[in-house]
Amino acid sequence: MPNFQAILNTIYNDTVKATDKGNVATYIPELAHIDKNNFGMHLKTIDGKVYGIGNYNTKFSIQSISKVLALSKAMSLIGNDIWKRVDVEPSGHPFNQLALLEINDGIPRNPLINAGAIVIADILVSNLENPKADFLNYVRELTGDQSIQFNEKVAHSERETGFRNFAAANLLKSFKNLNNPVDEVLDFYFHQCAIEMTCSQLSKSFFFLANKGKCVLNKTRLTKTQAKRINAIMLTCGFYDEAGEFAFEVGLPGKSGVGGGIVALLPDHFVITTWAPGLNKKGNSKLGMFALEQFTTKTNLSIF
Amino acid sequence: MPNFQAILNTIYNDTVKATDKGNVATYIPELAHIDKNNFGMHLKTIDGKVYGIGNYNTKFSIQSISKVLALSKAMSLIGNDIWKRVDVEPSGHPFNQLALLEINDGIPRNPLINAGAIVIADILVSNLENPKADFLNYVRELTGDQSIQFNEKVAHSERETGFRNFAAANLLKSFKNLNNPVDEVLDFYFHQCAIEMTCSQLSKSFFFLANKGKCVLNKTRLTKTQAKRINAIMLTCGFYDEAGEFAFEVGLPGKSGVGGGIVALLPDHFVITTWAPGLNKKGNSKLGMFALEQFTTKTNLSIF
Amino acid sequence: MPNFQAILNTIYNDTVKATDKGNVATYIPELAHIDKNNFGMHLKTIDGKVYGIGNYNTKFSIQSISKVLALSKAMSLIGNDIWKRVDVEPSGHPFNQLALLEINDGIPRNPLINAGAIVIADILVSNLENPKADFLNYVRELTGDQSIQFNEKVAHSERETGFRNFAAANLLKSFKNLNNPVDEVLDFYFHQCAIEMTCSQLSKSFFFLANKGKCVLNKTRLTKTQAKRINAIMLTCGFYDEAGEFAFEVGLPGKSGVGGGIVALLPDHFVITTWAPGLNKKGNSKLGMFALEQFTTKTNLSIF
Amino acid sequence: MPNFQAILNTIYNDTVKATDKGNVATYIPELAHIDKNNFGMHLKTIDGKVYGIGNYNTKFSIQSISKVLALSKAMSLIGNDIWKRVDVEPSGHPFNQLALLEINDGIPRNPLINAGAIVIADILVSNLENPKADFLNYVRELTGDQSIQFNEKVAHSERETGFRNFAAANLLKSFKNLNNPVDEVLDFYFHQCAIEMTCSQLSKSFFFLANKGKCVLNKTRLTKTQAKRINAIMLTCGFYDEAGEFAFEVGLPGKSGVGGGIVALLPDHFVITTWAPGLNKKGNSKLGMFALEQFTTKTNLSIF
Repeated sequence: MPNFQAILNTIYNDTVKATDKGNVATYIPELAHIDKNNFGMHLKTIDGKVYGIGNYNTKFSIQSISKVLALSKAMSLIGNDIWKRVDVEPSGHPFNQLALLEINDGIPRNPLINAGAIVIADILVSNLENPKADFLNYVRELTGDQSIQFNEKVAHSERETGFRNFAAANLLKSFKNLNNPVDEVLDFYFHQCAIEMTCSQLSKSFFFLANKGKCVLNKTRLTKTQAKRINAIMLTCGFYDEAGEFAFEVGLPGKSGVGGGIVALLPDHFVITTWAPGLNKKGNSKLGMFALEQFTTKTNLSIF
Repeated sequence: MPNFQAILNTIYNDTVKATDKGNVATYIPELAHIDKNNFGMHLKTIDGKVYGIGNYNTKFSIQSISKVLALSKAMSLIGNDIWKRVDVEPSGHPFNQLALLEINDGIPRNPLINAGAIVIADILVSNLENPKADFLNYVRELTGDQSIQFNEKVAHSERETGFRNFAAANLLKSFKNLNNPVDEVLDFYFHQCAIEMTCSQLSKSFFFLANKGKCVLNKTRLTKTQAKRINAIMLTCGFYDEAGEFAFEVGLPGKSGVGGGIVALLPDHFVITTWAPGLNKKGNSKLGMFALEQFTTKTNLSIF
Repeated sequence: MPNFQAILNTIYNDTVKATDKGNVATYIPELAHIDKNNFGMHLKTIDGKVYGIGNYNTKFSIQSISKVLALSKAMSLIGNDIWKRVDVEPSGHPFNQLALLEINDGIPRNPLINAGAIVIADILVSNLENPKADFLNYVRELTGDQSIQFNEKVAHSERETGFRNFAAANLLKSFKNLNNPVDEVLDFYFHQCAIEMTCSQLSKSFFFLANKGKCVLNKTRLTKTQAKRINAIMLTCGFYDEAGEFAFEVGLPGKSGVGGGIVALLPDHFVITTWAPGLNKKGNSKLGMFALEQFTTKTNLSIF
Repeated sequence: MPNFQAILNTIYNDTVKATDKGNVATYIPELAHIDKNNFGMHLKTIDGKVYGIGNYNTKFSIQSISKVLALSKAMSLIGNDIWKRVDVEPSGHPFNQLALLEINDGIPRNPLINAGAIVIADILVSNLENPKADFLNYVRELTGDQSIQFNEKVAHSERETGFRNFAAANLLKSFKNLNNPVDEVLDFYFHQCAIEMTCSQLSKSFFFLANKGKCVLNKTRLTKTQAKRINAIMLTCGFYDEAGEFAFEVGLPGKSGVGGGIVALLPDHFVITTWAPGLNKKGNSKLGMFALEQFTTKTNLSIF
């Protein structure tokens, strides 16, 4: 067993001195003023040990990381019926491109690109009694932490400026792949993305995916097979147009968000979360990717 | 001078006996119940003579034909500033594809595809005091006919089902190529498309484009150069993905609408309008295209 | 009747003083060393009068202009069977893109993009006894000038460097839309493009398209309808991704080549040819387009 | 440790009774007459044990499976310089599409699509003294088996009919991403694909990728990091437009070929090879995918 805390300390020191920290996302105005000097890293092993460094207890906007949690909830609700409405292939394109949606007659390439995540949101709106409250509660239960909240300002900010998501939702609607009204689905979706969590909370919330479907409270959330499949989707589709690069450099299933977070995991071993708000050109956390590459190189722990 | 009335009569007889009349557009529910046995044809020559056959005095929804009239109004209001926001190239794709909009950073290929027409609508909303009333008045003045109206049911029907137009407008907004709120621009756009006119009225309303910019009331609406340029755009872009076919078979600048209308013109000679509600696979009036091809073949009058 | 010679003189003076003359095509090495200060213009009216200015008697490589002449020969040989193998729609893309060919199952968008012209070349190779000699002879007869030749160095230069054309031809072959061996078809195609002519010769060679199918020797080369259709194709497809711009600014059917030539015509009125080797970003002669825009503006003669 | 032989036996019995066995590839004429009732499966564990069932000792054409071996050789020769010429992202498109190559300025999306594999072939042609003989020798050494051969008839068959590969190679050449002549690179590439091996030989030849770079003869062929990265590329890019599906259903890095073979592996645990010539619509072995899905389900051994 490697000395995880020592490794995190070394990576922290190497990471914070980087001069090029990428750029904070500006297309959601509320996220534009986050200080890109923030850096946190948190590891939770399958036997329950935790390790942290830097700002791992600071809340940030989880954004697209929420897509994995939403997918897990949809899978627990309707199972394989999901795959009638969304595919599981990498998109081979930037995260916001609508062209493939047109080519594929309204079937999004996978549930982790925006169009696919909007279909998943539609499924949750159809199948949850109080969609926003129920989903927030699900995330709290996964994490064992009742303090998790939506940031309403961020949700509102996305509603005012998320024109591409309105475009995608309307296009899905035109292909009859959205059952609820656009505004209702996107209200849910913008709230889902606007959940705020810390690195520590995110490691806990994804624990069930490293643990054959059982969450931190030892409750079964998904079957082993379902957990395995979500991990497969994260590996092939979790990083927009950089999924191959992340698999190649890091070698773990994971998911990034434009808030600067990344959660990655090695099944049966650990969950690891980083937060560094500066993004690279493809929209993934620049220092987060660097730190995770260092981690799998130094520990020699990856799925490959 | 050919005997125009005799030619129209012959074409009428050949056309109405066609067994394959195409299919009425169903994506706008209000248009789905139009009888596809309707067929009208109307010719107005530059010296003011008029010829008609069939249902040339029946009102129908002009739909995309309105894009030419809207473009002419925008041109008279802001001139060449239009071309900062929309290009003049054929799209080479079906009329509703969003892919090219993404490739071209939010600049629609031309003002006669939906995305381009929505930008023109945005220009009119910005530059007219009472956009809907003022535009309707403009069409009435072009035609010299105060009876022309919006069909509110059709406008409402499109608002409820026009998800692709909402997708296009939101995508334009994300590229900052829409200055007014999406709902306001599309409310205008759906009304513009929902104007009802007869073949006879349409021939009058397009007269200024065949007449160097002077309308039926002998009032200058555009400069000669502007009229010439709109004719050029109609020829290269007026028939969705069938512009080349129309130029090849008919050889006149023109514009079709999914309501089954087509207006075409020979500069300095005539305007001709057909109405046949059944569409071919590319969304243009099947019998209208046939009738116009017959007309230019029999009269030997085309721009080529 | 305008004073054509005076107009040509004025345009010449305005054109040659332009500081930005565009850039000579470099992808065909043999064309890279042409002096971009060359400028010639030649007009031939339907009644046989001719007007010239500048280097209108200097030979240059006609390149893609040859595609129109090849199309006319194919049309005279197999008529409408051409349209089983190539469409007549503008491509909406740069002249060398293969993507659309894949989307359309190997049917090129039109006969004036490279892929379409290669299909036409294949038709001529199948239908002419001695393809290169017979085609050269056809061009000589159209022009009434036996001195016209291939430039073998240019043909050879294209063979050595025309990898995109080899890519297109092989792709056509994979879709079974090329009947003869790739090397044989491209040898013909590269020679066809490597014909050298002067502005004066080009005006003569295109005369039949302005003259209802009858060439300068008063021999019928095409039916009236065929000539009209080639003109329609030139208008919608003759300028790569700038066909709309040319229709909009100039308003004549025409065809450009990367050698810097442009031929345009007004049916029943005239043929006009320009030569200026510097190209704009879209691959069309920069000063040629300017000069032709000036010509139709000053004479008020266009199809619109 | 599961009873591997019993599991293979069970899978064999379930697989051979399938009524829909897919279709044998017909685009390479020499492969069209293979009997699709063939089915073989072979497992080699990291500790050297082997298990086989069915036709696991019958030779077949490895086709695209060879791309992984070629990549490993190129990596050992020039290391990370490979990535200047080819990317590591999934293509999101069928294996033979050229469109993405144009969009990405001649840089193939990854080394396992045809265009990328042709670039790798070009690297080998540049860096091996006797490319074909040296590469064959490399495969023999990896496998510890000197009997492995090219099937010259298959190589010849591809040369006569592989027009899409000629198109891709010429397109790469036009982007200056091919240093050697097209014919020379494709002669190498067609031979590489025409190697014939059995399931048993393939399991041996891929052993080094499951074994941190050391081959069956205990010789180091790649560094641990290089082996890990090839595994990452196989997982994200190894199955054309079905990579996500394979990761989702099977959960192992692997590579398929149109000859009906699939090799997959679990790092530090085993290599498994299947052969079933009938392909599904996406070009992957239909029964091979089924058998591998059964294997990871029954053994619960996958990277996720």
